[in-house]
Amino acid sequence: MLEFVAGGVCAPKGFAANGVHCGIRKNKVKKDLALITSDVRCAAACVYTQNLVKGAPILVTKEHVKDGYAQAVVVNSGNANTCNANGVQIAEEMCALVEKYTGIKQEDVIVASTGVIGMELKIDPIAGGMEELAKGLASDEKHSSSAAEAIMTTDTVKKEAAVSFTLGGKEVRMGVICKGVGMICPNMATMLMFITTDAAITPQMLQKAISDDVKDSLNMLSVDRDTSTNDTLSILASGLAGNALIDAENEDYRTFCEALHALTTEMCRKLAADGEGATRLIECRVKGAKTKEDARLAAKAVVNSNLVKAMIFGADANGGRVMCALGYAGADLDPMKIDVAFRSEAGYLPAYREGSALPFSEDFAKRVLSEKEIGIEVDLNGGEFSATAWGCDLTYDYVKINGDYRT
Amino acid sequence: MLEFVAGGVCAPKGFAANGVHCGIRKNKVKKDLALITSDVRCAAACVYTQNLVKGAPILVTKEHVKDGYAQAVVVNSGNANTCNANGVQIAEEMCALVEKYTGIKQEDVIVASTGVIGMELKIDPIAGGMEELAKGLASDEKHSSSAAEAIMTTDTVKKEAAVSFTLGGKEVRMGVICKGVGMICPNMATMLMFITTDAAITPQMLQKAISDDVKDSLNMLSVDRDTSTNDTLSILASGLAGNALIDAENEDYRTFCEALHALTTEMCRKLAADGEGATRLIECRVKGAKTKEDARLAAKAVVNSNLVKAMIFGADANGGRVMCALGYAGADLDPMKIDVAFRSEAGYLPAYREGSALPFSEDFAKRVLSEKEIGIEVDLNGGEFSATAWGCDLTYDYVKINGDYRT
Repeated sequence: MLEFVAGGVCAPKGFAANGVHCGIRKNKVKKDLALITSDVRCAAACVYTQNLVKGAPILVTKEHVKDGYAQAVVVNSGNANTCNANGVQIAEEMCALVEKYTGIKQEDVIVASTGVIGMELKIDPIAGGMEELAKGLASDEKHSSSAAEAIMTTDTVKKEAAVSFTLGGKEVRMGVICKGVGMICPNMATMLMFITTDAAITPQMLQKAISDDVKDSLNMLSVDRDTSTNDTLSILASGLAGNALIDAENEDYRTFCEALHALTTEMCRKLAADGEGATRLIECRVKGAKTKEDARLAAKAVVNSNLVKAMIFGADANGGRVMCALGYAGADLDPMKIDVAFRSEAGYLPAYREGSALPFSEDFAKRVLSEKEIGIEVDLNGGEFSATAWGCDLTYDYVKINGDYRT
Repeated sequence: MLEFVAGGVCAPKGFAANGVHCGIRKNKVKKDLALITSDVRCAAACVYTQNLVKGAPILVTKEHVKDGYAQAVVVNSGNANTCNANGVQIAEEMCALVEKYTGIKQEDVIVASTGVIGMELKIDPIAGGMEELAKGLASDEKHSSSAAEAIMTTDTVKKEAAVSFTLGGKEVRMGVICKGVGMICPNMATMLMFITTDAAITPQMLQKAISDDVKDSLNMLSVDRDTSTNDTLSILASGLAGNALIDAENEDYRTFCEALHALTTEMCRKLAADGEGATRLIECRVKGAKTKEDARLAAKAVVNSNLVKAMIFGADANGGRVMCALGYAGADLDPMKIDVAFRSEAGYLPAYREGSALPFSEDFAKRVLSEKEIGIEVDLNGGEFSATAWGCDLTYDYVKINGDYRT
């Protein structure tokens, strides 16, 4: 049994969090520095952006989690600390400040940044704010929310969740905060996600769990196809739940992975729905693919298409654009077998059958596509594999946020 | 010596053209049916979309040019004849109508369509208009323009050009018409380009010439990454210039390819500048790549990035977005060696050097990026290869054209 619970990253045993405004963002009161700590050293695992241009914090974090353990996460918003000559030094100084005020070793700190690329990150405001940040750490829902707020940029809602499940009769919890797309000074859509759990699990199994999970969660999410330089997902497992240590792909591991997937896909939906300028969530579900990879390629191509995204903004049931995106997806498929339908709370609209357009009522189509969440359902009728991808519509506000912000 | 001349597809010896309004577009006077014919049977070659969902005309054209020869091109706008159960039959009927009124064999006709996907194309208006279309064929600039107009959809300017060059002392000409992005009833950006030449060249060398050319011309062009179902480039070579038949990769072949490239890249610039909703042409020139393919991947990634496109719309010199796109391009490159600069008629602005941001005057940057044509110059400092890609800015009007058209 898996249950969503309150508390965010503070829901699992042993974790505390906090967020403050330290002044990285000038003339703002918005929180810009977050900290998550554990009472004990945790098994730790991370996945990062595949962009060759990587933020300096990623280089530092990779070093710090190389041994499979960590105990804290420090994150600033307002500056990506990327493409700066002194970036690695600043990221290390952030970790040293965590050690100074919490006693957690610098080498056990995961560090992340999100904001403008190519602007020097000054250590002064961070040094000035760290004491207050560390002193204010607490293990409750309010402080998880403070941390979630502090990592937001142009996000319009804070994103956190937690689940409870059992392993061998022991209650285990897992919590998450994350941030998505857009900035006050917009530059790019850094995705940052930080997960905590009190499960007992080895670093190796933890890494396997998140590396496998992202293939069907974060890697199936797209707001604008622009892979950030700073994307980071980390997970800390404190072991305080008292379950039998997960050290193999056993039944407990599968239960753990199900809980993880419930959290990451919930976050994907929130991230897509809050994409820059977005008014609608798009969820594309592809089935009938020859391989898993074909299903993923097909679903991702549909949510990536600017034409599909603009069509959903206009609530126009133009299945030809979905067919077109499927055709160039790179998936092995037979166009003459493809069925396409649109689904929302207002109803279900078959649009293409065996590769040819179906007649439909324009009024009904407009109603179906005018909801906040639009499902695009594709059956390739060629095999047994399926995949889901999440995206959002392309709107005037996306262009405004990313083009007009200085004018 | 290569010289641009007037006349479009009628510039080379032996070609005639025309365009009429036959009524595929309801309640419109805009021309929607075009015909290009040759006095003699021509060596012919085509390249098509790589989308698996292909327009029915492409299937018919492939059959008709299988033997390496053709004599006419018939094109309608207003309907893509794609994802229709009877599409192939309709495309064949279009070719049969050309034979009926011109005497050119149905099997020697290249056929293309552009417009809405998934809407039946009725043969009636085409059957009704073909006699007038054929009777009005003429070999002058005005009639090339009529054909260029008849293939336009939401294009705001007609696109044609011609060049003159010499092969073994003989003057040879090559002409082109093409259309780009957008539709009255917008659906997707079908690219159609039709080239004529009076050069004498074998079908095999002609196919090689255009297949090689598109790697650095049309395949480096992107308005919105959405590969159409109907893209078609065809070339007809009448041989009437009287040059020695080109049947190998000799000096004449290289001269021919240079002339071809002058025409296709000129069209790429026109197509990008007239992209749906576009206000600025983006030309990204990458040099210093380890391989040609790395250079192409890097240049294409920059013009494809929605964030770069929105930034150019806002005239914001945000080199970090260019760095980000280069980082995920899939090219083999070292981020710490990359230089980035912006160039326009207003000046030259270095933005990144060896992977780090440079300081610059915001006023000067705004002036440089406010021109109609923006160059993004990238030096990967890693090798000897270079490539150029063409794109356009992402604007409110792109979203409007593709989202709002029924509301």
